[in-house]
Amino acid sequence: MATVPLISDEDASPEVRAVFDDIRATRQTDYVNNFWRAMANEPETLQAVWARLKAIMGPGALDPLVKEMIYVAVSAANGCEYCVHSHTAAARAKGMSDDMHGELLAVIGMAAQTNALVTALQVPVDPRFKA
Amino acid sequence: MATVPLISDEDASPEVRAVFDDIRATRQTDYVNNFWRAMANEPETLQAVWARLKAIMGPGALDPLVKEMIYVAVSAANGCEYCVHSHTAAARAKGMSDDMHGELLAVIGMAAQTNALVTALQVPVDPRFKA
Amino acid sequence: MATVPLISDEDASPEVRAVFDDIRATRQTDYVNNFWRAMANEPETLQAVWARLKAIMGPGALDPLVKEMIYVAVSAANGCEYCVHSHTAAARAKGMSDDMHGELLAVIGMAAQTNALVTALQVPVDPRFKA
Amino acid sequence: MATVPLISDEDASPEVRAVFDDIRATRQTDYVNNFWRAMANEPETLQAVWARLKAIMGPGALDPLVKEMIYVAVSAANGCEYCVHSHTAAARAKGMSDDMHGELLAVIGMAAQTNALVTALQVPVDPRFKA
Amino acid sequence: MATVPLISDEDASPEVRAVFDDIRATRQTDYVNNFWRAMANEPETLQAVWARLKAIMGPGALDPLVKEMIYVAVSAANGCEYCVHSHTAAARAKGMSDDMHGELLAVIGMAAQTNALVTALQVPVDPRFKA
Amino acid sequence: MATVPLISDEDASPEVRAVFDDIRATRQTDYVNNFWRAMANEPETLQAVWARLKAIMGPGALDPLVKEMIYVAVSAANGCEYCVHSHTAAARAKGMSDDMHGELLAVIGMAAQTNALVTALQVPVDPRFKA
Repeated sequence: MATVPLISDEDASPEVRAVFDDIRATRQTDYVNNFWRAMANEPETLQAVWARLKAIMGPGALDPLVKEMIYVAVSAANGCEYCVHSHTAAARAKGMSDDMHGELLAVIGMAAQTNALVTALQVPVDPRFKA
Repeated sequence: MATVPLISDEDASPEVRAVFDDIRATRQTDYVNNFWRAMANEPETLQAVWARLKAIMGPGALDPLVKEMIYVAVSAANGCEYCVHSHTAAARAKGMSDDMHGELLAVIGMAAQTNALVTALQVPVDPRFKA
Repeated sequence: MATVPLISDEDASPEVRAVFDDIRATRQTDYVNNFWRAMANEPETLQAVWARLKAIMGPGALDPLVKEMIYVAVSAANGCEYCVHSHTAAARAKGMSDDMHGELLAVIGMAAQTNALVTALQVPVDPRFKA
Repeated sequence: MATVPLISDEDASPEVRAVFDDIRATRQTDYVNNFWRAMANEPETLQAVWARLKAIMGPGALDPLVKEMIYVAVSAANGCEYCVHSHTAAARAKGMSDDMHGELLAVIGMAAQTNALVTALQVPVDPRFKA
Repeated sequence: MATVPLISDEDASPEVRAVFDDIRATRQTDYVNNFWRAMANEPETLQAVWARLKAIMGPGALDPLVKEMIYVAVSAANGCEYCVHSHTAAARAKGMSDDMHGELLAVIGMAAQTNALVTALQVPVDPRFKA
Repeated sequence: MATVPLISDEDASPEVRAVFDDIRATRQTDYVNNFWRAMANEPETLQAVWARLKAIMGPGALDPLVKEMIYVAVSAANGCEYCVHSHTAAARAKGMSDDMHGELLAVIGMAAQTNALVTALQVPVDPRFKA
């Protein structure tokens, strides 16, 4: 159970419905996932977060699959179960192979390990990295 | 100041020196950064961590630049100052442009925001994401 | 399942029972929630944590509802599912409206985003903020 | 040193300059802090983040000082040095007294303690908190 | 559900099977837990992580029970539900008494509290701690 | 710079002075470190945190050095620079050898790595770990 109700299509106000429709059109699916249905309790925040997400995750200097894998990595580091599941599914839908997933996981694990070692050691930043 | 001494080339044992030499050869640079010099207080851990990092970060199903950007993302999420600096520098050395960096940052920020919203809302995972 | 048994009223020692009674009296409810029943395996820690929580969360320079919303915010940032649920319920019981909840969530999400951006950018603290 | 240059007024493009001007007008100060100068390397992200921050942090169901203290709490939980300094300064500017600050700190510490205990105990959520 | 299949003994390749056998022999149990069955999708990572874990967690300057309790502490701080459960069980199997568990929990909670207070206060490191 | 003044002996109220004196007596040193001087702005919190820390960190089912190493592990996982420095120094003062420190670091790094892998994989908890 979420801490707020999940808003169904029937209960959606026109402005919420417009965001749901844009999610459907952008993702070419009829499915609107629980995150947006929870966010729909605050239409203004829903609209603002969706607009930014749509702008950020589209094609650009980085391709959408790379962005989706970065999203998985941040979500894992932040311990967000929902986000790991939803963005891993999204990455697969965008073409992430099992081998790519395996390497993504290995990098996440290695980064977490060296992050922890660096912090426990309090290693000073090399001056050349600050240039 | 680190919580351990940084081991110079002069103070390095032969096994540590061998790792330093492999770092230099692999990265085609004469510079060995502070993380490895701190790790060198424990030669076995140094050797094991370097061997895994080298294996993981090389070419594979994901290219090295993508892996480096994922490393930056995890390091930022984990709040590791040293790691953000060193892996941002490494990503630039591997070809990350300003535009790519800008998009990487935007994804990191957006993921952190939706991770926090999902956690604060305790959104239940959609069954289809678990399939 | 917790990693320890949850202590029922029947299994509670007199000192644990005294804490349970004070929780009931302070909160004007007959219900003692699972956190305290898990903590009750260590009566001394139970007593100390409850005494501090009671002292801190009461009226003062900040009102109890504000404190409860701050508690939700920290719990979300720390990824604690139980704590998000229990303190969101407590905030509602103390008068948090849907609009207040919506704004609380928006601040949590925005703070997480700018925290991540600042860390990924390693922005130096402005001297005036340290004065 | 940040991982990007801090953009001065002289180097700001017209769109960046417009955001800087709105920050000055909104906050009634001539000072634009380092976070925005770092963000200015990506004018679109700068504009979007500033617009949301301005909308979220203004008066509403919660007053701006309460929002600022929630921001400090999230920033501390996320370990963001810059953000703790800048939002503590902002909270003071909005009227946070020493006593309020002391209580804010006590709540942050207590929440972090019980978050950790709950996680280490893996306490199951009480059904009534999910209703 | 994990984001990858859990590999059964029947589906295990010979190299995966060899790791499973070594886990069984080292731990003197027939049971191979879900973490390794998930990791088995990437045999090379499985092998590398198991080899390091086995080397690190054995007897040395610290005894295995102390190491296991440190593992619980890190897992709790990182909010890893699975890891808290599995390493608490492992610590119990290695001799952790209820009293030791209680003290472990108290230290974890106290450390989380003072970590948060220090971060919220931005206390400067005493020069003598850096010597 | 901390976000509050550090209270010197001269500026300490009698109740703060009493805590400082107890810190000196308990630790058999004349030195009162910055954390307590920052906390001294809130005498009641100072007194409560010190009393609990003193009770928790003393001898018991776990010895004080083991507790101190657990404290370092939590502090590293939480990314607290001050706490890593102060508790590493405290652990050394209580007898932590270089070999013990090296093993502590290796466990911290390994735990962080498997925590991240488990979270990225969303491994379900084995039923036997919940028993």
